[in-house]
Amino acid sequence: MPHRPARQQFASDNLAGICPAALQSMLDADASGHQPAYGDDVWTQKSTDMLRELFQTDCDVYYVFNGTAANSLALASLCQSYHSVICSPVAHIETDECGGPEFFSNGSKLLVAEDDSDAARQGKLTPDAIEHMVTRRRDIHYPKPKVVSITQATELGTVYGVDEVRAIAAIAKRRQLKVHMDGARFANAVATLGVHPSEITWRAGVDVLCFGGTKNGLAVGEAIVFFDRELATDFAWRVKQAGQLASKMRFISAPWVGMLENDNWLRNARHANAMAQRLYQAIQRVPGVHVLHPPQANAVFAQLPATAIARLHAAGWKFYEFIAGGGCRLMCAWDTQPETVDAFAADLAAACDAAA
Amino acid sequence: MPHRPARQQFASDNLAGICPAALQSMLDADASGHQPAYGDDVWTQKSTDMLRELFQTDCDVYYVFNGTAANSLALASLCQSYHSVICSPVAHIETDECGGPEFFSNGSKLLVAEDDSDAARQGKLTPDAIEHMVTRRRDIHYPKPKVVSITQATELGTVYGVDEVRAIAAIAKRRQLKVHMDGARFANAVATLGVHPSEITWRAGVDVLCFGGTKNGLAVGEAIVFFDRELATDFAWRVKQAGQLASKMRFISAPWVGMLENDNWLRNARHANAMAQRLYQAIQRVPGVHVLHPPQANAVFAQLPATAIARLHAAGWKFYEFIAGGGCRLMCAWDTQPETVDAFAADLAAACDAAA
Amino acid sequence: MPHRPARQQFASDNLAGICPAALQSMLDADASGHQPAYGDDVWTQKSTDMLRELFQTDCDVYYVFNGTAANSLALASLCQSYHSVICSPVAHIETDECGGPEFFSNGSKLLVAEDDSDAARQGKLTPDAIEHMVTRRRDIHYPKPKVVSITQATELGTVYGVDEVRAIAAIAKRRQLKVHMDGARFANAVATLGVHPSEITWRAGVDVLCFGGTKNGLAVGEAIVFFDRELATDFAWRVKQAGQLASKMRFISAPWVGMLENDNWLRNARHANAMAQRLYQAIQRVPGVHVLHPPQANAVFAQLPATAIARLHAAGWKFYEFIAGGGCRLMCAWDTQPETVDAFAADLAAACDAAA
Amino acid sequence: MPHRPARQQFASDNLAGICPAALQSMLDADASGHQPAYGDDVWTQKSTDMLRELFQTDCDVYYVFNGTAANSLALASLCQSYHSVICSPVAHIETDECGGPEFFSNGSKLLVAEDDSDAARQGKLTPDAIEHMVTRRRDIHYPKPKVVSITQATELGTVYGVDEVRAIAAIAKRRQLKVHMDGARFANAVATLGVHPSEITWRAGVDVLCFGGTKNGLAVGEAIVFFDRELATDFAWRVKQAGQLASKMRFISAPWVGMLENDNWLRNARHANAMAQRLYQAIQRVPGVHVLHPPQANAVFAQLPATAIARLHAAGWKFYEFIAGGGCRLMCAWDTQPETVDAFAADLAAACDAAA
Repeated sequence: MPHRPARQQFASDNLAGICPAALQSMLDADASGHQPAYGDDVWTQKSTDMLRELFQTDCDVYYVFNGTAANSLALASLCQSYHSVICSPVAHIETDECGGPEFFSNGSKLLVAEDDSDAARQGKLTPDAIEHMVTRRRDIHYPKPKVVSITQATELGTVYGVDEVRAIAAIAKRRQLKVHMDGARFANAVATLGVHPSEITWRAGVDVLCFGGTKNGLAVGEAIVFFDRELATDFAWRVKQAGQLASKMRFISAPWVGMLENDNWLRNARHANAMAQRLYQAIQRVPGVHVLHPPQANAVFAQLPATAIARLHAAGWKFYEFIAGGGCRLMCAWDTQPETVDAFAADLAAACDAAA
Repeated sequence: MPHRPARQQFASDNLAGICPAALQSMLDADASGHQPAYGDDVWTQKSTDMLRELFQTDCDVYYVFNGTAANSLALASLCQSYHSVICSPVAHIETDECGGPEFFSNGSKLLVAEDDSDAARQGKLTPDAIEHMVTRRRDIHYPKPKVVSITQATELGTVYGVDEVRAIAAIAKRRQLKVHMDGARFANAVATLGVHPSEITWRAGVDVLCFGGTKNGLAVGEAIVFFDRELATDFAWRVKQAGQLASKMRFISAPWVGMLENDNWLRNARHANAMAQRLYQAIQRVPGVHVLHPPQANAVFAQLPATAIARLHAAGWKFYEFIAGGGCRLMCAWDTQPETVDAFAADLAAACDAAA
Repeated sequence: MPHRPARQQFASDNLAGICPAALQSMLDADASGHQPAYGDDVWTQKSTDMLRELFQTDCDVYYVFNGTAANSLALASLCQSYHSVICSPVAHIETDECGGPEFFSNGSKLLVAEDDSDAARQGKLTPDAIEHMVTRRRDIHYPKPKVVSITQATELGTVYGVDEVRAIAAIAKRRQLKVHMDGARFANAVATLGVHPSEITWRAGVDVLCFGGTKNGLAVGEAIVFFDRELATDFAWRVKQAGQLASKMRFISAPWVGMLENDNWLRNARHANAMAQRLYQAIQRVPGVHVLHPPQANAVFAQLPATAIARLHAAGWKFYEFIAGGGCRLMCAWDTQPETVDAFAADLAAACDAAA
Repeated sequence: MPHRPARQQFASDNLAGICPAALQSMLDADASGHQPAYGDDVWTQKSTDMLRELFQTDCDVYYVFNGTAANSLALASLCQSYHSVICSPVAHIETDECGGPEFFSNGSKLLVAEDDSDAARQGKLTPDAIEHMVTRRRDIHYPKPKVVSITQATELGTVYGVDEVRAIAAIAKRRQLKVHMDGARFANAVATLGVHPSEITWRAGVDVLCFGGTKNGLAVGEAIVFFDRELATDFAWRVKQAGQLASKMRFISAPWVGMLENDNWLRNARHANAMAQRLYQAIQRVPGVHVLHPPQANAVFAQLPATAIARLHAAGWKFYEFIAGGGCRLMCAWDTQPETVDAFAADLAAACDAAA
């Protein structure tokens, strides 16, 4: 099957391949011949131990195939069909999982909490918005709020600080809500914050983390980490019933071993973040370019002239436009090369120049 | 992470690793750098075309992560919550998917069709049993039968002949039931029958096939093949919502390319089947061993003396006992070696001798 | 159990009792001794025939217990879990059914279509808003629009004209959406419009109507009327499974006979509407009262001074405030008496006078 | 609408009408004018207090429309989708609710516990059968048992003694299963046993009772009684979402007041039971009639000659045959008259005589 290597792109971090450490672990696991199925293998035990060590706590860990499943199953374990989940208007669970959370929970409603704060404009939930959603009505004719879901890093490339997570967890605790963290890009957030992973999760009040592996360099797979282990009661049955238990589990878990060894997950994230910074530095002063906010993770969000967008697409560059008027998402991955960033920035400058 | 290669075992064909052709395709797909996500890549296109060519028809193909999901989603597309699925008492969907079909369909009932025919004892559904389940009651107080599900090869290591599938499909058509084939070991069945894959599927009246990849040598992944394409209307949304759409799809689909090229899938199946025959030949006359029926696919089912079972387990051999009184399942895989079979057979003979 | 008759109120039309005609039919049905269960009785046959005659078409009719069930089951029959339902932000299915539609459909998402037209301010969906919701995105990462749901009369006491329904149905047809009408107060709308019931339903393009009985004078019960009978395939099983099939069905259906005989349903609605008009006339010029729009059905929506609201509540008057700043809903029922309206209006005037 | 009063029949106790006490309460509730909706009325408060007094405990009570909903919602509150419910092969939840329990729980599997004990032949679950179902497998590939459901009186007209319920509850407790009692004919069981209602429910270890009202003389409605109130957490939301919250609740709850006053519920049940005894005495020695077991509640189960069945049906008598070879269910209701029993018995004797 002939094909030529594609150049790195800026459409999404899930366009990248498998990072070397993860691949090597998978190959090692394969070389080990017959191994027990359904997670009774040494690789699954090892990666789980490593995650517990990473988070410095005796958490419950489950591996599933993708982010939709991770988030949906985690949320389903936190609420019943007549409960609701408070999230941001740009939350992936609301905008891009095709009703997965509603499906797995058999009907739980997502309550989009809007406010006009700066934080909200940066894609973040705020304690005030949560408080409003919990208190505006409490009657039985409306699903009862039970969970707060935050995305770390957010869908707009920003990162919640430790204080922000703590403030959200505090209001959640007061209102008897559980705290779910969609960590599809959790690694990028930790890389940015420079804190211990425990600081931004359970020590800040997070009950369940969906730790993203795919965007960080795996072929397939996310880890659901229950810091409140009681919430994971019978969760193994839930995973199995929901079609998320791999029979040859080692091929899902072994790559996590490679990823977690030597802080490769953090190295990958730091690199992607650095590429976003490089891109930001290169384009922020280009006339016609309006960067929405300085990147805090691995994406730059910017408004570009329509003709520049067209030229860049025509030149083969891939990225998403999704904000009216030219707002584009430029996403960097673990394998994005500086030269690619520079080449794109140069093409962008030329395209803007032509558009002017 | 130190470990020693495990010897091949007889517990399940999902204890085996990745076959070389599938692995090579995955590595090729990885080497291709950034690629479109969610199936818009060349590998997904290629494998889908190959499946259409394999079946000689313009079928709809979807890749999902495992067999529970494949079967459950396929069944959910064939029936509503108040419908029912007729299956054999030993059907995997009934006995080993933790209520997955009921979950994905939001409540469809599995109707276990029992009869005391020879076919039933071999794990097969029969037209008579189906007819009985459809006609015994038709009132609205009981879920309306809508689907017949057959497993090919069956859970007891037998294989439906073309005539048997046709007879089932005929009664299904007359009773307005759709026909679903759980093909977790479809390859082994085709290898045994020596017929064209189309002969035992759509040409015989099958509407949807879940074509198993994992047990045939993939790391992860099954293909849902809709021969009746109307049944696949909006199925892409269903797959996405159900958490079964891989973002880095190429790592699920590319291995199918390797598997389908040069008939590797069939080669793998033939090998596994041959190993089961070798095992059967080696043990059928051992005193104390009672083989339930000659193997038709890649498993031998046999009753063994309890003490022999204990000795074999103590010696490190892994296999399942699941029929009262000593019935054991001895499953061969794509990578089971003749020497392993011979060594096991020798140990078995010794164990039986000691038991006598 | 001692109690004194409560005075009529303005909180909701479901605070009223059973209208005489419906009660008499129920008593007749009771007097008839043993009768077949589950709808095989003469009353169910009779009321169904009357509904077919009323709508001048051979529709399929199912009786369920309440509006949540009627709407949720009707919607579930129109879409799968990965589909979505376009509705107004004030739609009862969105705001007051506790996620019933999501539950019965196993996850279908309600898409709230907002726009800033006058029609939207009156609680109506518009063709433009529908078009926007259908076209803004069509990818598989978001539930696919499949149904438009409109409430007739609306939750804000307005009524869609025949042309408005036709325009919505036209855009729905073009976009392959089914049209559902939540007719909890369908009778009030027909009374207002003065058109034949068929004109505002199937002749205008409505596929399914949930015809409200409770608010019109029944004790319990709504009728689901499928004008597109194909959509009702196997619906009897759905109703049974969902716990909505009455065993002693005659007590649900017989009251419909009484209601439909002699146009009692229309008489009840006309009376309730007239009372709303009377109330409107009485209060619209009271200083401090700001009526939001002239009533088109059986409710007046008005902003009242906070102190006036408090005085009225203190005096024992019941009604809901639900719009910030004093917007109150004053709902009239089939049994609301002119004297009650006049007494309330007088108290209101006095309360506003005191508030000034 | 002309019709002639039907004679009492033996098809089902849900063919009967409304008992006078229940009807009078409903009429009283209607005469009370406008009343708060959704259960905030005096009748709902009153009937709930009466149920608490009846059971001598501070239980949580919810009123729903029918038995399918009562059982399904109760079970859904006891288990998640990946759990299972152990029941008898003749349990109504398994055989006649069209998959309602599976639907409301989003997939919980019913595990039919069969054994060949005398108790099982009388339609009862036994501790041994439960123990077998719990212990035969415990892996995650099969739904985890979480609930035991027993029907009191059973579907075969027998009644669990206090000791039997206690023994079941003991094994349930040991295996961490909740105990659900389907009490569609609970009144008949209490009438037979002559014990205090608390003795056969919570004092014997029952967690949730679905107390049937319809078959005991109501028009519509069952009460779900949670003895373990923690299991009812947020249950009001569940009821609302599931379409089981009556807006004009008083018409569901007031009849319970009438029923519970002066032990009318028990009087109704005693009468129905007495009629079954009268029927049993009248037919047990008729040649050709084989009564399966002496009636313990309000039904007689008997094998009759096929020609006798045909003659009786031709004469207008209605009853169900549902056991191969002539087993018929002859059900008595709260309003079955002695003369009707005698007339039927006479016709039966004549029909059997003719058949001989």
